[in-house]
Amino acid sequence: STALKKTQATLATSGVASAPGQYRVPPKSLLIINKHRTKPVVDAIDSLLHYMRERHPDVRVYHEDRPDRPDGTEIWRPGPNADPIDLIVTLGGDGTILHAASLFKVGAVPPVLSFSMGTLGFLLPFHIDDFGKAIETAFEGKATVLHRMRLNCTFQNKDGDDMEDVRQEWQVMNEVALHRGASPHLNTIDVFVDGQHLTEAVSDGIIVSTPTGSTAYSLSAGGPIVHPSLSALVLTPICPRSLSFRPLVFPSSSSITLRVSERSRAEAGLSMDGQASHVLRPGEAITVQASLYPVPCINRSSIAEPDDSRDGEGAGPGKEDDWVRDINNLLQYNATFRSKALLRHSRT
Amino acid sequence: STALKKTQATLATSGVASAPGQYRVPPKSLLIINKHRTKPVVDAIDSLLHYMRERHPDVRVYHEDRPDRPDGTEIWRPGPNADPIDLIVTLGGDGTILHAASLFKVGAVPPVLSFSMGTLGFLLPFHIDDFGKAIETAFEGKATVLHRMRLNCTFQNKDGDDMEDVRQEWQVMNEVALHRGASPHLNTIDVFVDGQHLTEAVSDGIIVSTPTGSTAYSLSAGGPIVHPSLSALVLTPICPRSLSFRPLVFPSSSSITLRVSERSRAEAGLSMDGQASHVLRPGEAITVQASLYPVPCINRSSIAEPDDSRDGEGAGPGKEDDWVRDINNLLQYNATFRSKALLRHSRT
Amino acid sequence: STALKKTQATLATSGVASAPGQYRVPPKSLLIINKHRTKPVVDAIDSLLHYMRERHPDVRVYHEDRPDRPDGTEIWRPGPNADPIDLIVTLGGDGTILHAASLFKVGAVPPVLSFSMGTLGFLLPFHIDDFGKAIETAFEGKATVLHRMRLNCTFQNKDGDDMEDVRQEWQVMNEVALHRGASPHLNTIDVFVDGQHLTEAVSDGIIVSTPTGSTAYSLSAGGPIVHPSLSALVLTPICPRSLSFRPLVFPSSSSITLRVSERSRAEAGLSMDGQASHVLRPGEAITVQASLYPVPCINRSSIAEPDDSRDGEGAGPGKEDDWVRDINNLLQYNATFRSKALLRHSRT
Amino acid sequence: STALKKTQATLATSGVASAPGQYRVPPKSLLIINKHRTKPVVDAIDSLLHYMRERHPDVRVYHEDRPDRPDGTEIWRPGPNADPIDLIVTLGGDGTILHAASLFKVGAVPPVLSFSMGTLGFLLPFHIDDFGKAIETAFEGKATVLHRMRLNCTFQNKDGDDMEDVRQEWQVMNEVALHRGASPHLNTIDVFVDGQHLTEAVSDGIIVSTPTGSTAYSLSAGGPIVHPSLSALVLTPICPRSLSFRPLVFPSSSSITLRVSERSRAEAGLSMDGQASHVLRPGEAITVQASLYPVPCINRSSIAEPDDSRDGEGAGPGKEDDWVRDINNLLQYNATFRSKALLRHSRT
Ligand SMILES: NC(=O)C1=CN([C@@H]2O[C@H](COP(=O)(O)OP(=O)(O)OC[C@H]3O[C@@H](n4cnc5c(N)ncnc54)[C@H](O)[C@@H]3O)[C@@H](O)[C@H]2O)C=CC1
Ligand SMILES: NC(=O)C1=CN([C@@H]2O[C@H](COP(=O)(O)OP(=O)(O)OC[C@H]3O[C@@H](n4cnc5c(N)ncnc54)[C@H](O)[C@@H]3O)[C@@H](O)[C@H]2O)C=CC1
Ligand SMILES: NC(=O)C1=CN([C@@H]2O[C@H](COP(=O)(O)OP(=O)(O)OC[C@H]3O[C@@H](n4cnc5c(N)ncnc54)[C@H](O)[C@@H]3O)[C@@H](O)[C@H]2O)C=CC1
Ligand SMILES: NC(=O)C1=CN([C@@H]2O[C@H](COP(=O)(O)OP(=O)(O)OC[C@H]3O[C@@H](n4cnc5c(N)ncnc54)[C@H](O)[C@@H]3O)[C@@H](O)[C@H]2O)C=CC1
Repeated sequence: STALKKTQATLATSGVASAPGQYRVPPKSLLIINKHRTKPVVDAIDSLLHYMRERHPDVRVYHEDRPDRPDGTEIWRPGPNADPIDLIVTLGGDGTILHAASLFKVGAVPPVLSFSMGTLGFLLPFHIDDFGKAIETAFEGKATVLHRMRLNCTFQNKDGDDMEDVRQEWQVMNEVALHRGASPHLNTIDVFVDGQHLTEAVSDGIIVSTPTGSTAYSLSAGGPIVHPSLSALVLTPICPRSLSFRPLVFPSSSSITLRVSERSRAEAGLSMDGQASHVLRPGEAITVQASLYPVPCINRSSIAEPDDSRDGEGAGPGKEDDWVRDINNLLQYNATFRSKALLRHSRT
Repeated sequence: STALKKTQATLATSGVASAPGQYRVPPKSLLIINKHRTKPVVDAIDSLLHYMRERHPDVRVYHEDRPDRPDGTEIWRPGPNADPIDLIVTLGGDGTILHAASLFKVGAVPPVLSFSMGTLGFLLPFHIDDFGKAIETAFEGKATVLHRMRLNCTFQNKDGDDMEDVRQEWQVMNEVALHRGASPHLNTIDVFVDGQHLTEAVSDGIIVSTPTGSTAYSLSAGGPIVHPSLSALVLTPICPRSLSFRPLVFPSSSSITLRVSERSRAEAGLSMDGQASHVLRPGEAITVQASLYPVPCINRSSIAEPDDSRDGEGAGPGKEDDWVRDINNLLQYNATFRSKALLRHSRT
Repeated sequence: STALKKTQATLATSGVASAPGQYRVPPKSLLIINKHRTKPVVDAIDSLLHYMRERHPDVRVYHEDRPDRPDGTEIWRPGPNADPIDLIVTLGGDGTILHAASLFKVGAVPPVLSFSMGTLGFLLPFHIDDFGKAIETAFEGKATVLHRMRLNCTFQNKDGDDMEDVRQEWQVMNEVALHRGASPHLNTIDVFVDGQHLTEAVSDGIIVSTPTGSTAYSLSAGGPIVHPSLSALVLTPICPRSLSFRPLVFPSSSSITLRVSERSRAEAGLSMDGQASHVLRPGEAITVQASLYPVPCINRSSIAEPDDSRDGEGAGPGKEDDWVRDINNLLQYNATFRSKALLRHSRT
Repeated sequence: STALKKTQATLATSGVASAPGQYRVPPKSLLIINKHRTKPVVDAIDSLLHYMRERHPDVRVYHEDRPDRPDGTEIWRPGPNADPIDLIVTLGGDGTILHAASLFKVGAVPPVLSFSMGTLGFLLPFHIDDFGKAIETAFEGKATVLHRMRLNCTFQNKDGDDMEDVRQEWQVMNEVALHRGASPHLNTIDVFVDGQHLTEAVSDGIIVSTPTGSTAYSLSAGGPIVHPSLSALVLTPICPRSLSFRPLVFPSSSSITLRVSERSRAEAGLSMDGQASHVLRPGEAITVQASLYPVPCINRSSIAEPDDSRDGEGAGPGKEDDWVRDINNLLQYNATFRSKALLRHSRT
């Protein structure tokens, strides 16, 4: 059980490893991220703020600068001069973590503690009702993190030069997808690996995914499921007009360029972690590489109580792989055909 | 809801349609088929025999000639001179129906009423506890049947002549599979459609399946799910050494020949509905065509009570398609990713 | 070789069969269809018109009412009162036949003789250079046709009533596709078969395809290849968020309804044979059924010369299945891995 | 172009890296491996021996101890006390390299220079006609190698103890496959990752593959193509009776156990790189881990002449990735549908 844990580290070491001195244990600053402001989210933020005031009154609690920013939080603005954050807490669905990560485009990302509001997700290890226990483990430096790889994207114009008008760098956790979007026509995309031409894809589009994203869009398009502790890039075509296109898995040292062919009848819309970004015209390209800055996500297993019996499955805390549970419970991986159980249906 | 029922008919008409005069309503003879003689099966046969004596004392009840043939049944032997059977009752799993059908190699097959012993299956519409109601509906001529296509197989030697030593014709309900079996080597099979060369397959093997069999081995090998009321042949490769081999669906009027190539490094073992039959050597071939004699399987829906509320899903008797239920309940077709429900697992 | 030909008939009989008296042999009227007016197309039309004037001066030659209508053709307008057409000649790609068929929304479609301008396609049996021979065979009533199934579509609003604003009936040859289009969000579509709920699809979209369309978009989305002489509907999901969604094949008697779920976060754009039609909002539905009016497409093999040796493959005229050739030549079906031939690449 | 090369090293450094001092440059000993003794192989060995005598008379040339061992070679026997080998030369197909690697079960493997006899293969970078140039580059220490991962296998009995009777350790380059073989019945295999239960597989079998093996059996079973410079394990099911089984990719630090379930109706035959090894009975297991000893395979690109123009594709020597060429040329990866070229077929 030790092998899979190699990319995992306790919060303390992880902080040290990825950006010396930046993540303090115990954290001195905390950033709350939520996308929606539904009643459960509002209640959860209230409880969380109350909890922090009671137990950790010295910690500064931040929130994005939005009209609905909760009272008792300070404004946090992303960018090179952002206030340092030691711990991110997200409240919502998988999309909330994607959003949180997207705020840290430059430099290292603080550890992320993600709470679901009842809806489970792949990136949501904790139920909001358990927030106390989870926060304490994180504050004590006992939490282990999984460093989820991110992709770094740059854009090239027809001449191969970096595009002026798309200065902003992107960092994605799931995937970059080039897609025909509303165009009825297939597009033609040239794929290069480390500068070498790999193939010409005539398809609805192409996905370059992280292992984390391998259970998102890439999976729907037929890609393999890749363990998030592996460093790799997954290239998955979307509805290719070819019988012989297969998903490819590359080492994370590879650089992948997707270039809309000059011959392409259609432009291609770019989505980054599900956010429509801009449109690439024939001749334009995006280059994707592993980012230097992964997202340290706090594991579910690291928080479990030693005496937590967990259905008698027998694994002790920290011994289980969240991912194994998730592909079984969330994706219903390899669900066997039922032959018992549904007898009622056979009764007439 | 009428469309899918076109290949279905009431027992009475069906009998008339497929073999005039042969299937009498009410049935005068009944053949019990079971593969194993477990306690539940023994009990079920007892109850069935008792029921028949009480309610239908004139009906002759047959059983295969086996050492464990139940008392109170007459011996039935397959073949051209077999005693006529008006109704088959099977007790067991899907394999029991496959076996029952295999006994009727020549001429029409009597309607089949299939009871599960608790384990559901694709070919098992009825639970044994409901046998009384099911039998009465069949005896009243009110049951509707689905004519499940079968495949007829002949064998050719290197010269293309019919093989002497494999006289016995085969009729299969699920599929014919040519497979490398214990050989470590891939085999090479030439596939012909209506005498025309279609492709050379280098693979673990090739499946030719009926729509019924499309949820059996063919499905595991990546084939599509074909509604059993469609008349069609499905060709599915097993682990082909090619990126561009896809399952093919042919009209049932097609004749498909699988010929082990002279270049094949390995022989190919033949399985018919999961029964190993014999081995084809390089140059030898099997030709598969739709059989004239499908298997009339009595539907679950035709037996339902008019007042049977069925979970409030609202469909009346005879209105539902067993198949839609089965792919959802048994195969868990398109099971959506869970996001609710399993919250317990996220608790720490 | 006879089996696959069952749905094929000589032009004469076919005409009689599908619409008595309508298609005359020899044809008295001919409709030329082209999408683009490139130089090769213009030249081809010139040659064709010249040929007709010389050889069949009594035949009326029509063209769609477009600014670029060639001299020497009469205007033809689709609709219930359209001038009767005995033969359609298309010049262009696969899309040109799709367009030609779309002009005959009401009633039977005249036989279609399709010429490629050099680019091969699945629906393009003839090379333009052979037009003389092809036309003569058609005029002599010796051509055989493949009746390609079409789909008939109707639309329902939230209340299940037919939609007022989408009066125009659609007839498609390839497929109907519901797709998220430019929306970044997955849509949710409820699929019904013959009125019975089959499944809820969370995906990029859903395709309902004819066998003809099984080599078009459905193939790219992972669907099986279905022989066009089979009458069937293919349901193929596009990037479904489920591990267990598989393509389904239904008898052509089935009626399939795709309904955008009220829960769907996104609308769904409708494409008919690749033409964007309109958008379905949550609650709205499309119902697809086999059309009464297939498209009679003239076969390549029916035109071949008796003495045409065809690479020594040995099949006489009319004996070969165009489709077998096409999946091998155009799709490169089951292309075997190369081990010879490319030796140059291994030279250093 | 540098990124993919990270796992590649010049022969000199590679030797140092994987086993200090063991691989001398220039090599002092050479092992010739061939499986068959066909005329081209005999001739090639003759030329090679002659070349060595002329150019490198001090190098000891070894061969396996077989009756057909060529004159002028010394006997080499595998095992802990084997004579040290500095360079392996294989002559034959992909299977010859697999065999060569299997001889080095203990400790590091010397660099492998693989020559095809005309038949290309994934593991065959060089054509025999180029042997002089290839050998010189290797002798000069200029060749770069790709360290191809291997799998190390151990066996456990019902009690989880190491099996006595299967002492011999196995090292495989492609894959371990558990398969039902000649049994007509599906087997049931429990899959564990790092000791944690992952899933129960009811299928024809399970493959655990290296990235190298991802283009072999795993590919045929539907697995992704994984670049050989990535360290990873691929788990691919063979014909699983489940709609929701997908290939999985694990970090090479994972340990995967395949255990034939006590409930399995069938035993499971084990194949290692296509060699049938033994049969696992219900309760018995195999555990697979990345080996410490990869196989250093000499690259094609490292041998190319600086002035070698290579079709004007423009990549200089050492800049190209053999793998990109191979998946395009050998697998015909993403072969686009043909629309030109085959016009002859459309002529009648
Ligand atoms: N056909 C498809 O499967 C499509 C999938 N997407 C995915 O949606 C993502 C954006 O997510 P949201 O902003 O929440 O949009 P959303 O609200 O439309 O949700 C997409 C779904 O994907 C799930 N998801 C997100 N990341 C995941 C991951 N790493 N592993 C497993 N499931 C994951 C979410 O829980 C949600 O169920 C994109 O990054 C893309 O991967 C986007 C478009 C189409
Ligand atoms: N890898 C695979 O999926 C393999 C599947 N089979 C299938 O097993 C069949 C023989 O069945 P048994 O004698 O019961 O052997 P078995 O006891 O080994 O059962 C095979 C499984 O297939 C199921 N099955 C059988 N016919 C089916 C159908 N038409 N639709 C859905 N499920 C069906 C059975 O319920 C059982 O779960 C063969 O006809 C073949 O289709 C055989 C070998 C390998
Ligand atoms: N990802 C994909 O594969 C997509 C495919 N399409 C297909 O394009 C069709 C429209 O075709 P065009 O107007 O020519 O648009 P187009 O010019 O964009 O061409 C689509 C391609 O599909 C081919 N094609 C069309 N019908 C075919 C058939 N029945 N079998 C084999 N290949 C076929 C055409 O030859 C062309 O190569 C749609 O009906 C749809 O099937 C449309 C969108 C996406
Ligand atoms: N259905 C299938 O695809 C099967 C494949 N195999 C494969 O055959 C291998 C043994 O090879 P041989 O001893 O030559 O047996 P073989 O002579 O039966 O050849 C199998 C084929 O696989 C090719 N091959 C081997 N390793 C490869 C690789 N790493 N990438 C791409 N192609 C490769 C060979 O060139 C040959 O064409 C096994 O390791 C297994 O991967 C074995 C059984 C079934």
